Amino acid sequence: MISPITLSLDAMGGDHGPTVVIPGLADYLKRSGDQNVRFLLHGDATALKIELKRHPAVAAASEVRHTDKVVAMDEKPAQAMRRGKGSSLWNAVESLRTGEAQAAVSAGNTGALMAISKLILRMSAPGLERPAIVASWPTLRGVTAVLDVGANIESDAEQLIEFAIMGEAFHQAVHGVARPSIGLLNILRQGGLDLNYHGFVEGDDIAKGTVDVVVTDGFTGNIALKTAEGVARFISTLMRETLTSDLQARLGALIAMPALKRMGRRIDPGAINGGPLLGLNGIVVKSHGGADARGFSNAVRIAIDLGRSGYLERVSRSLGRLAALAPAVAAPQTEDVAS
Amino acid sequence: MISPITLSLDAMGGDHGPTVVIPGLADYLKRSGDQNVRFLLHGDATALKIELKRHPAVAAASEVRHTDKVVAMDEKPAQAMRRGKGSSLWNAVESLRTGEAQAAVSAGNTGALMAISKLILRMSAPGLERPAIVASWPTLRGVTAVLDVGANIESDAEQLIEFAIMGEAFHQAVHGVARPSIGLLNILRQGGLDLNYHGFVEGDDIAKGTVDVVVTDGFTGNIALKTAEGVARFISTLMRETLTSDLQARLGALIAMPALKRMGRRIDPGAINGGPLLGLNGIVVKSHGGADARGFSNAVRIAIDLGRSGYLERVSRSLGRLAALAPAVAAPQTEDVAS
Repeated sequence: MISPITLSLDAMGGDHGPTVVIPGLADYLKRSGDQNVRFLLHGDATALKIELKRHPAVAAASEVRHTDKVVAMDEKPAQAMRRGKGSSLWNAVESLRTGEAQAAVSAGNTGALMAISKLILRMSAPGLERPAIVASWPTLRGVTAVLDVGANIESDAEQLIEFAIMGEAFHQAVHGVARPSIGLLNILRQGGLDLNYHGFVEGDDIAKGTVDVVVTDGFTGNIALKTAEGVARFISTLMRETLTSDLQARLGALIAMPALKRMGRRIDPGAINGGPLLGLNGIVVKSHGGADARGFSNAVRIAIDLGRSGYLERVSRSLGRLAALAPAVAAPQTEDVAS
Repeated sequence: MISPITLSLDAMGGDHGPTVVIPGLADYLKRSGDQNVRFLLHGDATALKIELKRHPAVAAASEVRHTDKVVAMDEKPAQAMRRGKGSSLWNAVESLRTGEAQAAVSAGNTGALMAISKLILRMSAPGLERPAIVASWPTLRGVTAVLDVGANIESDAEQLIEFAIMGEAFHQAVHGVARPSIGLLNILRQGGLDLNYHGFVEGDDIAKGTVDVVVTDGFTGNIALKTAEGVARFISTLMRETLTSDLQARLGALIAMPALKRMGRRIDPGAINGGPLLGLNGIVVKSHGGADARGFSNAVRIAIDLGRSGYLERVSRSLGRLAALAPAVAAPQTEDVAS
């Protein structure tokens, strides 16, 4: 028996607004069979009703909270904080603070979502300037969580430990691994810390799936993520050019198509869409602005899994233990490559 | 008419020693048609003679300098510096200092090669702790040089400018681009500096080939390089599994094989093997320890191109100009993602 949960949605966020959000919720309901979830839909009631007519299962589980105010995708975070009150994004987060919902999803402006979430919910991790973003990275062994991938640019030892604690709880909640292994991204392997701590991992360990959770400062994490996306796009472009370069190659590709499609599903960006903002007193999941219904559905699943898992309580307990231990934790040392 | 050059070789370096070095030189001579090059082969005369008998064109262009001392692949750099004198690696670099050779190639121990090169040749770039390593990165537009990828862990503004100057001269010499564009790896794009400076580039710009030269501190560069290798290996493993997963996929792959082979050549690691150690008073190129003859041949070509190009003089002039300007150069600022 799964526990009841209410999910709050910024129904106007992302490149497509309700035309992706509502089909995304329908996809979630169909795949999960979840009959114990309610949706609070924040956005334009007229636009939402058109979509809800097409998806009666979603309509039956939803309550619409009308607002005609939206945060633009290119709005500066500071501006969104000043002027965003009452917008669909703002109200989706506000529903967490009031306790009406246990998790929220938005495909809207990332900077605005981080700033508004921090303003409304406050940080639970005392060392963090702003929420950490988690990337779910497909690997040879499954999925590895990498955090932070861009929010916190300079991260000291305390922040890295907070990332480790939050990453562990996230991976437990979403991937059901009892004791996820954790590695610290570096350029030389070494030991350290507590947890199921694997030690330092290198860049190539991410795609190998050497550990379940890779901890890194936001600067390095963002470089790694973007570099990986660039390489993946480079290879897939090459592959497409190659398999359409002449008639013979096209024929071969046609014959191998069922296998190629299976592979495509394995590295489908939609299947890994949904980046939780960790470190807040509330569960906020960012969906990619350009995600389709299938991708949005995955972000919804992550938010619901986190909401039902007791993630917030677990992290809060661990951070409490950390605070008691704090003076004993030393900064990890980086060794010279030439020593 | 190409100018005469003498290349010094650590003929015992790498996983395979002379059995790759000599065929590699033969491959270089055959591909380039270069009749104006001499090789100084440092290593075990008996082993070398066996290989030279099989490659008379190399034998005709070579002089053997016997030593039976080698630096082990797993030797610590500090130990190699103390005990490496008279080894094939040491003597290959020493030939640059004496002026007998204009460039050197070794597939030996990277840390030892860096330490011994620095000891014998001294740094020419005053801001660098140790030589910068350049990676040649295959991109949609050709090849982009990325430096530093691992030698200098913390790099300040002055070092990054030195990387830019050396990277520009390297790309001019090896890829014949008159005015290579240069980008600084960061997580937000911004302007700055002089040169043909594109501004900040992000991780995904590397594989796009947005600029000819990507400048980065060694820590970030190493993470990016290893992450990219990991992703490339992940995708090629998936692809191999996919195209052998059943009979139909195998048949399709067989038919598309000529096109797949063309693609393989385009991203062949051998075609981009050869990492110059920049910032030294001499041209030292590191070949991958496991490279085959074709790969070694490419490292040889890079060393010879650099040796003939006037690379050292150009960098020395640019660094001289930089020293005159130095107080005017400000450290690049990193902007908040949430500001």
